[in-house]
Amino acid sequence: MRSDCHICRSEGFTANSRVTLRFNENSVIATLNVVDGQLLPSGTAGLSRIAMHRLSAIEGQKLMVSHAPVVTSLSHVRKKVFGNKLSDDEIADIIKDISAHRYSDIEIASFLSVCAGSRLDVDEIIGLTQAMVECGKRLSWSGQNMILDKHCIGGLPGNRTTPLVVSIVSAAGLVIPKTSSRAITSPAGTADTMETLTTVNLNLKEIQCVVADTNACLAWGGAVNLSPADDLLIRIERALDLDGEGQLIASVLSKKIAAGSTHAVVDIPVGPTAKVRSDKEANRLASLFTQVGAACGINIRCLITDGSQPVGLGIGPVEEARDVLSVLQGDNDAPLDLRERALFLAANLFSLSYQESVEQGLLRATSILDSGKALQQFQRIVQAQGGIKQLPEARYQHTELVPEACAITEIDNRKLARLAKLAGAPGSPAAGVRLHAKVGDTLSKGEPLFTLFSDSEGERDYALAYYSEQGNPFTINLT
Amino acid sequence: MRSDCHICRSEGFTANSRVTLRFNENSVIATLNVVDGQLLPSGTAGLSRIAMHRLSAIEGQKLMVSHAPVVTSLSHVRKKVFGNKLSDDEIADIIKDISAHRYSDIEIASFLSVCAGSRLDVDEIIGLTQAMVECGKRLSWSGQNMILDKHCIGGLPGNRTTPLVVSIVSAAGLVIPKTSSRAITSPAGTADTMETLTTVNLNLKEIQCVVADTNACLAWGGAVNLSPADDLLIRIERALDLDGEGQLIASVLSKKIAAGSTHAVVDIPVGPTAKVRSDKEANRLASLFTQVGAACGINIRCLITDGSQPVGLGIGPVEEARDVLSVLQGDNDAPLDLRERALFLAANLFSLSYQESVEQGLLRATSILDSGKALQQFQRIVQAQGGIKQLPEARYQHTELVPEACAITEIDNRKLARLAKLAGAPGSPAAGVRLHAKVGDTLSKGEPLFTLFSDSEGERDYALAYYSEQGNPFTINLT
Repeated sequence: MRSDCHICRSEGFTANSRVTLRFNENSVIATLNVVDGQLLPSGTAGLSRIAMHRLSAIEGQKLMVSHAPVVTSLSHVRKKVFGNKLSDDEIADIIKDISAHRYSDIEIASFLSVCAGSRLDVDEIIGLTQAMVECGKRLSWSGQNMILDKHCIGGLPGNRTTPLVVSIVSAAGLVIPKTSSRAITSPAGTADTMETLTTVNLNLKEIQCVVADTNACLAWGGAVNLSPADDLLIRIERALDLDGEGQLIASVLSKKIAAGSTHAVVDIPVGPTAKVRSDKEANRLASLFTQVGAACGINIRCLITDGSQPVGLGIGPVEEARDVLSVLQGDNDAPLDLRERALFLAANLFSLSYQESVEQGLLRATSILDSGKALQQFQRIVQAQGGIKQLPEARYQHTELVPEACAITEIDNRKLARLAKLAGAPGSPAAGVRLHAKVGDTLSKGEPLFTLFSDSEGERDYALAYYSEQGNPFTINLT
Repeated sequence: MRSDCHICRSEGFTANSRVTLRFNENSVIATLNVVDGQLLPSGTAGLSRIAMHRLSAIEGQKLMVSHAPVVTSLSHVRKKVFGNKLSDDEIADIIKDISAHRYSDIEIASFLSVCAGSRLDVDEIIGLTQAMVECGKRLSWSGQNMILDKHCIGGLPGNRTTPLVVSIVSAAGLVIPKTSSRAITSPAGTADTMETLTTVNLNLKEIQCVVADTNACLAWGGAVNLSPADDLLIRIERALDLDGEGQLIASVLSKKIAAGSTHAVVDIPVGPTAKVRSDKEANRLASLFTQVGAACGINIRCLITDGSQPVGLGIGPVEEARDVLSVLQGDNDAPLDLRERALFLAANLFSLSYQESVEQGLLRATSILDSGKALQQFQRIVQAQGGIKQLPEARYQHTELVPEACAITEIDNRKLARLAKLAGAPGSPAAGVRLHAKVGDTLSKGEPLFTLFSDSEGERDYALAYYSEQGNPFTINLT
């Protein structure tokens, strides 16, 4: 609002005050930004898109502005800031207020920061998970007593197993209505990758149709409002490049529970530059996932996997989609590591479902993939979601060649992810990186190391500057 | 900027991206807010006042916008988020970047939140203090080998001893160039109170003149840029209603050190509703203050005082100024507790300066106050700062009467402070509360308990609603 408008002047409202806005029955709490001069007409408020949407406000009509009520759950956040444990009720209050958009961004940032690391104990994580489930929709799948799911805690560029696992498992007749997130801190989430191939922005009814038709889906979870609090938290987590343990578990499990899942495998890659860096940490996380899952009524099996380097060759939505298609099609040059990891995860879901050994599950999964049934099933799912899209090409590409003969000894996942993000992923779906070599490979002088894709010169230059200054992900030995 | 402008479109900039703005030699990092429609002309950016100021930007001229560089110190913040100790260099990097306005508000909120409570150890607090001193101006007082200072860690409404202590101590010929802050989470800081009486917004040269003239000043510290990082941190601390231990010590001591102080007393009130609630906590804080002070070359004496109820009768800038004047003038109804506390603090400064006992110091202080020399000295300081102002009257006042004869058994400092803030303090200087009774007083039916002052009906009603619903600070026994 304008500094000279009657609200800013006569009611003691100052810049950054929290205010309540009311339009008909709806209200939101907002932060007052004060503008000088003629930017806004006098007596007018400029609202954000989300405030307009939540208020169902109509331009030109009258809006009520008043002091914001005291948001009492903020005292619980302060309690946590000062290192005290929160009760289930306190956590539920916080999550309810966040879902109702009563927190400012800095208040959410404060809450997330003091819950990060290992600062939530198992009771608090259970409380947070349940609070997040309470705030959103909850799906049920009539007539099904086993609903499968999978999740990777991330940190490994290119590890796009979900479309493969879902296709393999549902080809066997099991039900896996998979909703995925977009990237939080990575160059691509499964939803970002699938969106390059088909429609993922499905509403609940559409998801139910796809699942009724195919036993599966590969949709974005955000559109069905499974965990609205989580979506608000993730916005700030992304801006802070932060992903706390308790928050992570609650985010993952609340969405699984809300999606009606009964059994899930969780892939935990471990490596020096993965999200989880030691077996000890992985075991701790696995134990928390399993305990919190059990307390919330979902059977979780954690799989601790190799996270020493990227999986597959493509990094970024479109490049990862290419890898997925090549594995499904059984192409000769399909990345073997991606194939094997997807088979391993599918094997574990078979093992959970049929109470068979992982070895038996692996035979089952391999046969489904190699017979082409997984590809057919993938095509059915894509068809049910609205049909296949043409993958877009990036406007700019740059291929980096090795100046000397060499062997690749290490690839830093974080730097590689950052490189792909600076190139524009996932905002520009075609942006990213394609690796031409992995750890253990040897290259002759002048052979390509990677290709960088971007949709703008600015991003290309920014990414290449990062690569040459501080962000080279490759450790090489000259041979 | 507009969503359809060439920067938002062609360079992959999205809402909330961090961007660098350049104008001639100056640059800032800013958060990109994207607006729809005609709010801004195409190709135009709307800047905040602070960005305009820091860039020395001129309206209508060309501004360069580019991707923000990676702010590497954010990785140190993440390290702290995950519970690891920071080195001096890491803290210095963070504070340097914050001072240079390279952090967004949510990044500052994250840093403050994970440094709150007892999460900084003594080494980190020393590092933070020194880093904050490095970033600002540093005053020196030629020819003086002893520069006094005082500080109260706050939490006690009305505890406005500073103008009294400064007047008493400088009347004795000691040097006490006092710069004070505005309120962080309280209804008034010393700068807010002094501003109702005289000019406090002095630049360095003006402060030096006042001190040369009177041995003292009662100025606002913010205008001399003693700790620019702290000013930025305090903005977010205030919004989060957060005041961490390490941050508190670093904030206080960095300003003392930058102000050239060599000896200081720190008043730590303890009480169930004060900022510090137990002697244990007070002793811990006292020990940290003394250790950090010693490491940074300033002699600190901490005084643990009674914080069980407000000091004086007025709460809010103007009402506290009235109390200060009445003590200086020796009015019959001057609040005795405020007088005694000021004398005790002054006595300790005399004890530090003359290496005499506190008892000797107390005789000296009492004699200066009772002889009228402190009042004269206060008038000299005010005169040197620009002369006395007329205290404004609040537009609205409401006096609350007790419905039955009663005795006051407790006053909740926090609720009282909140009541005064809701009434508009310190933004409206005349807003606040005047107590008509303190703990131990008895009142007959219909006698006044307190008067609430505010400058708008909205704030008055808001404060009174808080008082009657959940915020009554008084515990009374019917007699």
